[in-house]
Amino acid sequence: MRGAVILMNKERVELRDFPVPCPGPGQVVLKVMASAICGSDLRAIYRRDAAPEDPAEMYRNVICGHEPAGVVAEVGPGVVRFKQGDRVCVYHVTGCGVCRHCRQGTVISCQLARSAYGFQRDGGMGEYLLAEEQSCMPLPDELSFEDGALIACGAGTAYEALLRAGVSGDDRVFITGLGPVGLAMGMIAQKLGACQIIGVDISEERVGIAKRIGAVTDGLSAVGDEALRFVQEKTGGDLCEASFDCSGATSARTLALRGTRRWGQCTLIGMGGRLEIDVDELMVFKQLTIRSSWVTSLGHMEDLCGRAARWGLHLDKMITERLPLGEIGNAYAIANAAQSGKVCIVPD
Amino acid sequence: MRGAVILMNKERVELRDFPVPCPGPGQVVLKVMASAICGSDLRAIYRRDAAPEDPAEMYRNVICGHEPAGVVAEVGPGVVRFKQGDRVCVYHVTGCGVCRHCRQGTVISCQLARSAYGFQRDGGMGEYLLAEEQSCMPLPDELSFEDGALIACGAGTAYEALLRAGVSGDDRVFITGLGPVGLAMGMIAQKLGACQIIGVDISEERVGIAKRIGAVTDGLSAVGDEALRFVQEKTGGDLCEASFDCSGATSARTLALRGTRRWGQCTLIGMGGRLEIDVDELMVFKQLTIRSSWVTSLGHMEDLCGRAARWGLHLDKMITERLPLGEIGNAYAIANAAQSGKVCIVPD
Amino acid sequence: MRGAVILMNKERVELRDFPVPCPGPGQVVLKVMASAICGSDLRAIYRRDAAPEDPAEMYRNVICGHEPAGVVAEVGPGVVRFKQGDRVCVYHVTGCGVCRHCRQGTVISCQLARSAYGFQRDGGMGEYLLAEEQSCMPLPDELSFEDGALIACGAGTAYEALLRAGVSGDDRVFITGLGPVGLAMGMIAQKLGACQIIGVDISEERVGIAKRIGAVTDGLSAVGDEALRFVQEKTGGDLCEASFDCSGATSARTLALRGTRRWGQCTLIGMGGRLEIDVDELMVFKQLTIRSSWVTSLGHMEDLCGRAARWGLHLDKMITERLPLGEIGNAYAIANAAQSGKVCIVPD
Amino acid sequence: MRGAVILMNKERVELRDFPVPCPGPGQVVLKVMASAICGSDLRAIYRRDAAPEDPAEMYRNVICGHEPAGVVAEVGPGVVRFKQGDRVCVYHVTGCGVCRHCRQGTVISCQLARSAYGFQRDGGMGEYLLAEEQSCMPLPDELSFEDGALIACGAGTAYEALLRAGVSGDDRVFITGLGPVGLAMGMIAQKLGACQIIGVDISEERVGIAKRIGAVTDGLSAVGDEALRFVQEKTGGDLCEASFDCSGATSARTLALRGTRRWGQCTLIGMGGRLEIDVDELMVFKQLTIRSSWVTSLGHMEDLCGRAARWGLHLDKMITERLPLGEIGNAYAIANAAQSGKVCIVPD
Repeated sequence: MRGAVILMNKERVELRDFPVPCPGPGQVVLKVMASAICGSDLRAIYRRDAAPEDPAEMYRNVICGHEPAGVVAEVGPGVVRFKQGDRVCVYHVTGCGVCRHCRQGTVISCQLARSAYGFQRDGGMGEYLLAEEQSCMPLPDELSFEDGALIACGAGTAYEALLRAGVSGDDRVFITGLGPVGLAMGMIAQKLGACQIIGVDISEERVGIAKRIGAVTDGLSAVGDEALRFVQEKTGGDLCEASFDCSGATSARTLALRGTRRWGQCTLIGMGGRLEIDVDELMVFKQLTIRSSWVTSLGHMEDLCGRAARWGLHLDKMITERLPLGEIGNAYAIANAAQSGKVCIVPD
Repeated sequence: MRGAVILMNKERVELRDFPVPCPGPGQVVLKVMASAICGSDLRAIYRRDAAPEDPAEMYRNVICGHEPAGVVAEVGPGVVRFKQGDRVCVYHVTGCGVCRHCRQGTVISCQLARSAYGFQRDGGMGEYLLAEEQSCMPLPDELSFEDGALIACGAGTAYEALLRAGVSGDDRVFITGLGPVGLAMGMIAQKLGACQIIGVDISEERVGIAKRIGAVTDGLSAVGDEALRFVQEKTGGDLCEASFDCSGATSARTLALRGTRRWGQCTLIGMGGRLEIDVDELMVFKQLTIRSSWVTSLGHMEDLCGRAARWGLHLDKMITERLPLGEIGNAYAIANAAQSGKVCIVPD
Repeated sequence: MRGAVILMNKERVELRDFPVPCPGPGQVVLKVMASAICGSDLRAIYRRDAAPEDPAEMYRNVICGHEPAGVVAEVGPGVVRFKQGDRVCVYHVTGCGVCRHCRQGTVISCQLARSAYGFQRDGGMGEYLLAEEQSCMPLPDELSFEDGALIACGAGTAYEALLRAGVSGDDRVFITGLGPVGLAMGMIAQKLGACQIIGVDISEERVGIAKRIGAVTDGLSAVGDEALRFVQEKTGGDLCEASFDCSGATSARTLALRGTRRWGQCTLIGMGGRLEIDVDELMVFKQLTIRSSWVTSLGHMEDLCGRAARWGLHLDKMITERLPLGEIGNAYAIANAAQSGKVCIVPD
Repeated sequence: MRGAVILMNKERVELRDFPVPCPGPGQVVLKVMASAICGSDLRAIYRRDAAPEDPAEMYRNVICGHEPAGVVAEVGPGVVRFKQGDRVCVYHVTGCGVCRHCRQGTVISCQLARSAYGFQRDGGMGEYLLAEEQSCMPLPDELSFEDGALIACGAGTAYEALLRAGVSGDDRVFITGLGPVGLAMGMIAQKLGACQIIGVDISEERVGIAKRIGAVTDGLSAVGDEALRFVQEKTGGDLCEASFDCSGATSARTLALRGTRRWGQCTLIGMGGRLEIDVDELMVFKQLTIRSSWVTSLGHMEDLCGRAARWGLHLDKMITERLPLGEIGNAYAIANAAQSGKVCIVPD
């Protein structure tokens, strides 16, 4: 079978031939039906200097991609929940299963044996994927494989942040950064009841996508004071009960806090950058809370699969480019230009 | 001016003539524009034996009615927030303002000087109402006076319960009892994002009203096992994350708990009756929480006024009968038959 | 090796000879150093008619006991966290590891492969125990094996309930039922900061134990009005912010609610019996919340091990009888008399 | 009567003669028995350039001081809760009583008529104080007037922050800044159950006071890496579940976050300065929450009075200097040197 491997030269990525994997105990092999590109892939491929230094985190010359969904092709011994033919999506990291973090499903923080698909173990940019049963989530019939691929990492991150902030119809939502995570944030916030979702991004294209797919009720390509005035105007001066920075930019985080209403909360999802604020004005006098959130847990990712089906939430609306595995180099280049929605590899 | 007084004989209620009140310090006089009937009025009028024995709670021969909305006709000295012509609705109880409960706005539990409009002090079933500024809420232009009258007591109670249960689009909602509080529960739950709202009542008329005004997505006139099967069927066997008993009936509370999903919560709003359940099956194995909620606080009632405007929530849709003050006896009789939606007195 | 098996005749229990187990993948074999008796064992042995009817729950003729602690004697392949010589205690149920419940560590609700030590798989009343690594918790050096045995089920249940109720020094605590779970509740509540812990039980012996080991600050052998007066008197009429029923008795639950302060919460831990209360008086007017809690999660059990070491909490103080495995029949009989603290089997 | 007034010259403060005030409706006059100095007084007196520019916030040439406690000398008409001879302490700000913020007791954010004792209306540095009944809290007999004066502003701020963070015995606490608010934080955290309270300050004197009065279990005069190593060492590398910055210094806030354990929370109380951090390392990977908290509410201040009595908490232990009103200039100078505990004016 073919699988994509990231190169350390300017070719960036190449397809190689691999044997189709065979499932061991507690493992399944999936035929990959959709495999999306995430911002952290791009960091590994294009901005290696921005990637984590921790050797445990580095890319290990495996098949890349960590947002897959597919069909169970074969199950190994001891698999109890899944059988051949089941549709699944995949949590993007495997863990030891027995450390304090794995015990509550926050595998991302596993202390003993963390391994991310597409970074330290073969990932989704191949025809088949060897996955732990631990990582697999039942993909409801109501959802497409592409929906499932998007739940895997980006939408799970958005859902977790929304749960922590307790967003409901009682809240107006303000999103800074309308990349794929920001788009998912808007789409899920709407399903949680938020009646008004204001989004800003420096890219007009991304604001356009957000409006077109209904991820925001009000969108503007603006920064700083102009963006704040937009929030004020759209909320009658009230500002928003809940804000989410999905950009990772220092200035956007300040903007998110400025756009948050007294007693509200601002959740930081975007990676990188800093937080540099005046505490009295932006926090104490407004009695604000700043939360952070790092991906999601196994349990909440499974919940999101169920909720998406119940809600009729089709995250695949944010996919603007679908390419076959043979065009993976091109796919990464498009995603890296940061002017598109989500980019997804689909079977030929 | 005319005002209605509750009688201790079978005439039930009569109109008398009163002087138009004059506002003292911190008081306003309202021209009443809408004044709704609540279940607790009916208990005072029709089922006096079921009314609280505490003398502090008894009806004191005043103008009845505690769900008014109107226009400020005159302000007393020291009033800081309202002025002549302002549209307001009214929290239904006044308190000392300085006890532990009043200090957080839960005036209903005031320990030193609690007085309910229409029970211990003149209420809304007159042409004018003398109100404390403490009790008055700004009624946004987007809302009708009738909307405001319904916020006063019933919808505030529903909103408070929904806030305590943290209902959002993540939850399915199950309501037992579709009287006015149950109808408000369904209408507000929808605005908070609940994607499915299942309601049951013994009255087919009330189920019909609930469906007609969109207070439930699924409604049935049924009790016990039949009602539970309805919930199971409509949720694919999952049951509901949040249930609310708005009936006060012992059996309906058991039903509400049976219809609640594992890890969910059931909130008891309806007054009277008992809770009689098997703890292992209905609580421990399901890891359930049972909350109670008694009316709302000043702060949350003000929030609801703002949210209703923002949401375009028109509670007045649940009013099925509008009568002038001259027909107040008839109005109470209709409400007491428990086959209607809300009954509201409006100016001639 | 010897292991105790529950009999269906009046001999109740007998020791049989078993082969020392051999660990498979992901398993460890423990040399059992302490193995405590729980109320649910007694139900299986003495009150079989009160035991759950669900065949999945029934005793399966295995070595009994589900509150063990010991030393790792041998590890199977793929074990990542534990090695020979490690001191461990054991969560009392194993699960599939991949259902929604296992994914958050609430193995007790596993939907696919739940199996309780001592009920459906060999438990702690033998010289060695075959355990899943999934179930094992590191036992800190500061704690004795007996401390570890008590954490396994009873104290974990108490800790979980206290976490859900959010108990801190801000709260007074009222406990109904001073059996082993009630004693653990008091001891842990004190470490969480509760400045006053009032406990009642029908048994004077149990109240005496509770006072002697410092599980309560105020204890009385009383029920109903007398017990309530005790709570009122000891709190200057305020009642307690948090109450816990550890008895499972219908009347004790009512008492727990009566002893709970306005805005407080009552958590139901004891199994069996019913909840039969007047809702207005005991819930609505007091704005109370009733929680339930069923054992604990893997994560919180591990936390409790760490906290107990940090706190210097020695649950073994509640052990009033220590017997060797050869006297297991006698041990069960003592525990069943319900006049003692905890009963624990220790190596000869 | 004599009262202290802040001067705009280098004399700083002078005593003038005022008429003894007479209570109007809803007001009381207190004989001041203790009146403490707060950091915000010092800002008004010594660092006027750092004071808020908002004219609504400026000092208005009134009797200064906003942390008083005393005895009710006279009550005005309509006062319902207090009578002559009652011991009270005073919330430091008065509000309109009817805006959204006052309605929940967070008077500090009053939108219509906020007025702080000692800034916009006569405060506690006189022989008598004219106070609104709204502001008065019953001071339990178990507490001294000095205890009451310290509850007023500084300890209320600490208690509110601890409540928001939900601190209990489950948590280790880390405090940066051991001025009066930091000292109160430590003392109250201990009563809430915190088993370990680590405090750092740049002043050795303040660390010494904190240790001496038991506000910390571990204290060090250190900053940056050295302070972090101290936290690591004292917690076995775990760090603290809850941290509180009481310094207002940018670098101390970073330190507080560095000393916070994964999943923990850091609450910012100190005023001034900035927050300047790397988000990935200090927030996202640790899944941290940053809260802010601005003073407290009327309700929680009343709760703290009750809890302090219940706990036997004597905040007056942090008073290191007691001076009569005649020495007020000296008192402010001592407080401004920031080497002492709390400074309190007491009757001659």
